[in-house]
Amino acid sequence: MNDIDIEGLKGIANQLRIHSINATTAAGSGHPTSCCSAADVVAALFFGHMRYDPKNPHFYNNDRFILSKGHAAPLLYAAWAETGLFPTEDLLKLRQLGSDLEGHPTPRLPFVDVATGSLGQGLGVGVGMALCARLDKLDYRTYVLLGDGECAEGAVWEAASLAGIYQLNNLVAIVDVNRLGQSQPTAFEHNLNVYKKRFEGFGWRTEEIDGHDIDELMEVLAAVGLGSQPLVILARTLKGAGISFIQDKEGWHGRPLSKEEAVRAIAELQPSARPGTGRSIPTPSQLPAPNNAAPAGYPPLAYKLGDAVATREAFGNALLRVGGADLRVVAMDGDTKNSTYSEKFFKKFPDRFTECFIAEQNMVGVATGFGARGKVPFASTFACFFGRAFDQIRVAGISMANIKLVGSHVGVSIGEDGPSQMGLEDLALMRPIAGSVVLYPSDAVCTEKLVEQMAMHKGICYLRTSRPKTPVIYNPDEQFPIGGAKVVRESPGDKLTVVAAGVTLFEALKAADELKNAGIGITVIDAYSIKPLAKDVIKTAAQKTNQTVVTVEDHYAEGGLGDAVAGELSADGIKVHKLAVRELPHSGKAEELLAKYGIDAAAIVAKVKSLT
Amino acid sequence: MNDIDIEGLKGIANQLRIHSINATTAAGSGHPTSCCSAADVVAALFFGHMRYDPKNPHFYNNDRFILSKGHAAPLLYAAWAETGLFPTEDLLKLRQLGSDLEGHPTPRLPFVDVATGSLGQGLGVGVGMALCARLDKLDYRTYVLLGDGECAEGAVWEAASLAGIYQLNNLVAIVDVNRLGQSQPTAFEHNLNVYKKRFEGFGWRTEEIDGHDIDELMEVLAAVGLGSQPLVILARTLKGAGISFIQDKEGWHGRPLSKEEAVRAIAELQPSARPGTGRSIPTPSQLPAPNNAAPAGYPPLAYKLGDAVATREAFGNALLRVGGADLRVVAMDGDTKNSTYSEKFFKKFPDRFTECFIAEQNMVGVATGFGARGKVPFASTFACFFGRAFDQIRVAGISMANIKLVGSHVGVSIGEDGPSQMGLEDLALMRPIAGSVVLYPSDAVCTEKLVEQMAMHKGICYLRTSRPKTPVIYNPDEQFPIGGAKVVRESPGDKLTVVAAGVTLFEALKAADELKNAGIGITVIDAYSIKPLAKDVIKTAAQKTNQTVVTVEDHYAEGGLGDAVAGELSADGIKVHKLAVRELPHSGKAEELLAKYGIDAAAIVAKVKSLT
Repeated sequence: MNDIDIEGLKGIANQLRIHSINATTAAGSGHPTSCCSAADVVAALFFGHMRYDPKNPHFYNNDRFILSKGHAAPLLYAAWAETGLFPTEDLLKLRQLGSDLEGHPTPRLPFVDVATGSLGQGLGVGVGMALCARLDKLDYRTYVLLGDGECAEGAVWEAASLAGIYQLNNLVAIVDVNRLGQSQPTAFEHNLNVYKKRFEGFGWRTEEIDGHDIDELMEVLAAVGLGSQPLVILARTLKGAGISFIQDKEGWHGRPLSKEEAVRAIAELQPSARPGTGRSIPTPSQLPAPNNAAPAGYPPLAYKLGDAVATREAFGNALLRVGGADLRVVAMDGDTKNSTYSEKFFKKFPDRFTECFIAEQNMVGVATGFGARGKVPFASTFACFFGRAFDQIRVAGISMANIKLVGSHVGVSIGEDGPSQMGLEDLALMRPIAGSVVLYPSDAVCTEKLVEQMAMHKGICYLRTSRPKTPVIYNPDEQFPIGGAKVVRESPGDKLTVVAAGVTLFEALKAADELKNAGIGITVIDAYSIKPLAKDVIKTAAQKTNQTVVTVEDHYAEGGLGDAVAGELSADGIKVHKLAVRELPHSGKAEELLAKYGIDAAAIVAKVKSLT
Repeated sequence: MNDIDIEGLKGIANQLRIHSINATTAAGSGHPTSCCSAADVVAALFFGHMRYDPKNPHFYNNDRFILSKGHAAPLLYAAWAETGLFPTEDLLKLRQLGSDLEGHPTPRLPFVDVATGSLGQGLGVGVGMALCARLDKLDYRTYVLLGDGECAEGAVWEAASLAGIYQLNNLVAIVDVNRLGQSQPTAFEHNLNVYKKRFEGFGWRTEEIDGHDIDELMEVLAAVGLGSQPLVILARTLKGAGISFIQDKEGWHGRPLSKEEAVRAIAELQPSARPGTGRSIPTPSQLPAPNNAAPAGYPPLAYKLGDAVATREAFGNALLRVGGADLRVVAMDGDTKNSTYSEKFFKKFPDRFTECFIAEQNMVGVATGFGARGKVPFASTFACFFGRAFDQIRVAGISMANIKLVGSHVGVSIGEDGPSQMGLEDLALMRPIAGSVVLYPSDAVCTEKLVEQMAMHKGICYLRTSRPKTPVIYNPDEQFPIGGAKVVRESPGDKLTVVAAGVTLFEALKAADELKNAGIGITVIDAYSIKPLAKDVIKTAAQKTNQTVVTVEDHYAEGGLGDAVAGELSADGIKVHKLAVRELPHSGKAEELLAKYGIDAAAIVAKVKSLT
């Protein structure tokens, strides 16, 4: 690093600019000016500073790079093309259906760990990666490139705060302060001091530089890792830098150059442009690889039928049991660990637990970061507070992230705390996440078995747990495959099928008893897997019971179990009647609320009687 | 204010503590220690500083108070009871189904403007109120009481940033720094300097005090409004303050005292307790009331059939037209105003527009604040980014807030930007919001008429707009009631009914043309109102067409139009077949993506043929 070819790096920056312009002009859309402002930073990082194997972007000790300002995707693609990973000609396929060089980066590309494009999310993921490096005793660093506009997102400050608290000196943020947002200048334009004071207040070391000065860039990068604080480099830049007739001008966000403008721009840039190919890139150290192998299995359970255990507590037991056998398992919580019972894991395995404090967006980002590094992260909080992180979860879906979310305190059955603490929309939120698995156990055995499978399943899984204690109804050797359902009550001549999950399963069983006494048989199904739904199990039962199903759920009527069943089965002519919470609930005792909102045994009995 | 009865205020604080202890012990749940830490602050604010009419909590120029740390609800209830608004005996009904003194505050109570209890949300609402006071030329101030733990939420910093940018010196935050979170101490415990540096970095004036010292409290409160900055009072407090055997101890979050403990605690507090009733409270100034009357109507439209107008642009036109006639209308955007077209309103009515920058959680909080003060706020951004603010929207539902959300750039039809920018879950998110109205227009006329109704409808309304231009298909005199649907194509002998909305309506019409040529008639319905859904219109059509419906939507298959229709109609034996996006989409041209993901005319034709 003593003999840095500054002119070469400057040349590469211009080469990256040229690629970004050509690609977006060819595509007819995109953000070339947002690429140009960050081109020098990216050239310095990729061709003079970061330690990685350009032929193997997944190497476990490569420095990581997250383009939080995902709209500068063409710049990232250009950098990797210039390392030689793929032909630079491919850059002209930007944004085409046939190319994975999409409008914003996704992990369909081997050099992208996580999707970006929804602003303000990269730093939280970076925190997770930096924590993971520390856990794995690896010396890779994580670099996150942010725009200045996205620093308005609270998620950035949640991440900044946690990085400061945990003194992540292996984390480096670079803010491309190009002064111009999408629709107007940013609030602070080139006043770097505002950002400096903020990051300092959040526990960071700060460096203010001219983001187009490679000398300065290399100088501050040389001091990465010094001290105990995370480092933010505040880079004063010009949007469209290098294009004399565009740079620092408003009205150029998300707008490609015309062909003629591109020719003019490239004429300015070409003379000093230099290729990146062939440059030697600092190599990562050869430290021992982390052991991210799945275990052969998990220890057995020890519940007895009839034990009263809340599923939230069963989750805590499961996390401890599964996490004891599976070293990939890490956990995080948002200062609710004594309620979600993730505390059991925290007490036994503090090194693998991250207290994220009351900052759910960042907690999901941290989980996504761990997941991208081969771990199996379980993040838990009250179900309703995962709504805070919905956008992070959505983007985790685009990232095809391997994260496990566990939401407790669902529905009106939490009782007295009232509606602000009741998860009544979580199924509706989690079902549309791309590739998600949504699970909702009723008893402790089912909960434990589902947690095992969550650990083994690659992808986003959501587990919905309940506050009240419920009896164990399954034997410890029962299996609960993802996508399954259990027929828990069935007799010849049943009039209809009740599909329930969680606390309402027990209401359905009570209703079945009562109806049986009245001479009405019903089939009862435990739909513990909401997505994928055991369509065939329910359909088979419905076909034996007058094509009629009643769903009952401690969730609003929209987007939950009832809609899932109706959406899957109505095409087959199955009649689906929904019992669900249909108004804004009130504080009260759990049993009072189940009754008031029409999802208790009495409501099921009344509904069944009205249909038979 | 020169003759402050400090001992009296101290006594009231203890009286509030006693009420909080009694109420939570009676309820058997709740957060008495979180009440005790803030009791002196609340006593000082309510009985020595704030200007309000205690008999009329809704008076337009009363100072506003938001209990962002909503779990201290009993303290708030006690304060209002001590003003004489309701009998103090009612406090013992805390958390009962029959009392509106719920676990966390909701606007079912006349003195609560907005629900709290999901932490970190109060300050954003306060920013909206403070902006509204400025717009209305009123001198009321907005006081927001936060916990220290909730300052980990990014939403707090989004709000702090905007308050600093707009120099809201009529906004006062008080942070009750009691050092202890729910499951462990906060990250910064009593290190007030961390909070001080952060708020200063975000543009605030700060005061650090002993939060149990009424003298100090009154002194800093006397300087509220000085200077141009918002003020934060950092109050060092003890959780459980005043109860010698509990204060500053871990393990007391969300835990009521036993009856015996309550007796001991009250024995300590009672000797110095004083009633609040009868104290003179500073009166608010009698400035002219804001004009928040609804207009008699809105100017007419001027579109011609066949005009090509994107519904997002029609929204911009509508906001300008409706907002011109309706002075209650205010607007806000998250630096996307040139894409959502809210820019049209901004340019004409800059005083009624708030640029919220890229901070969607806070934008929704600001809207909720304006709505709580009688305005009709329209907040717009890309549909997918409203997911960022889901929890704020959920709580707005609990607040029964009057806010209008407009999400643009929905579905795969946005094309090249790729999945991170595609709103594919927004219907699933907005449908379960308590009391929400969810609208999805296909053409400009429908959009404009829906915006009129959004302005007139009290409650949360969501409008889903699209990026591509679509032809005007309705005459300007057509009516689009909320909860309606339009049968746009119908013939005797139709084989089935296609229900579409937005861009897919045009695909359905193309399909109808093609199928007609093949001798197959289909009914086509424009389901512009997703919630409430025009169940009867669809059912009537389905009953004429073999009980068969095909839904087609530019949205994921879960929780959107298809689930809504199936969830409403399957109980009647209507067969609902869903066409929707069923995998993570890719960048590409809009028409390519509609085809690839099976929601274009060809897919509809194929589906119809497979069913007939």
